[in-house]
This record gives sequence, structure tokens and C-alpha cells, in this order.
Amino acid sequence: MVPTRLTDTQRDAALAELPEWRLRGDGLAIERKLAFADFAEAFGFMARLAIHAEKVDHHPEWRNVYNRVEITLTTHDAGGLSLRDVAMARAIDAML
Amino acid sequence: MVPTRLTDTQRDAALAELPEWRLRGDGLAIERKLAFADFAEAFGFMARLAIHAEKVDHHPEWRNVYNRVEITLTTHDAGGLSLRDVAMARAIDAML
Repeated sequence: MVPTRLTDTQRDAALAELPEWRLRGDGLAIERKLAFADFAEAFGFMARLAIHAEKVDHHPEWRNVYNRVEITLTTHDAGGLSLRDVAMARAIDAML
Repeated sequence: MVPTRLTDTQRDAALAELPEWRLRGDGLAIERKLAFADFAEAFGFMARLAIHAEKVDHHPEWRNVYNRVEITLTTHDAGGLSLRDVAMARAIDAML
């Protein structure tokens, strides 16, 4: 089933419950920047998230530089944010 | 020991032997873009590289979107490219 893009109202309501995430400038994605103690901690987190992403078949766009991980969530099939991104953001927050 | 930044001549000689890598616009890093069959293949590669990076204490800057991995190598302590980046590029090529 193709995921549905959130309306602006739905998006704002979801973001209100995800205080660690910010809306990307174009409004089509949410982002969170994380800092860990070192590379091993950062990659350990990435490995956990990778397994979760594969399980739910929804994958982050992410960038890693040593202890830092920058995550972008969007749903290409929906052309913007969907409930899958909200669920993924919650799952990430719960991993930390 | 602080790694030494390569001279332009050393850099060009190293790049001549790394045909899959291109010099970043500012000349301070090399980049390679990879595409795998899917996310699991891409992340499997990332896990192998992460372990290698930790072992040699030299870490890539990288970005992953589903099956694609973009890698940037530079040596911050050297203010540009060092032999550590050349060795890392060779190690990455050997993993593929």
C-alpha cells in the first residue's frame, strides 16, 4: 500500500510530539542530529537502526562523521512526510 | 604522530592509482560513490568498513540512502589528504 502524505495539520501535530526533530526547509522531511561518545557508539546505534529499518522496510537518509550522525526521514513514495516517518522518528528516539 | 598532508605531486600520483576516486572540488578530500543491490548489501559493506576504520583509527565521512553509499576521505589533522586516506581508499576498493 502506498503511504499517504500527511496534511500540514497532521504534520504539525506529529512534530509537536517529536521535539528533537525539526522540519526540513522544504517541509518534505524531518531531521535530527545526534552526537555520541565516539565512532563505535555512533556506528553501534547505526547498526541497531539499520536492522530496524530493514524490518519495517523504511530507510533513513543519514550521514556519519566520526561520532556524529545526521538523520533525514522522508517517504519518497508519498512525496513527503508520512506516518512511516513519524513511526521511525519515534523508534529512533526510543533507541537513545 | 600527526599525519603529513600530501603535496600536490604526491596527491596526483596517488589519485592516478585510484581511478574510482575523484578529488573533491577544494582538493582536500577524495570521494567515491557506490551503489549496491539493496540496503542490506550497502549496510553490510558499511559494517565491514566501520570495523576496518576503527582498527586503523581513521574514519570516513559517509552518507547512505538505501542502496547508495557516498564516501569522503580526508585527514583533519593534516588539513587535507594524507597517506592514511590513500590507504583507506585502497582498503575500500579491496572490499568491493
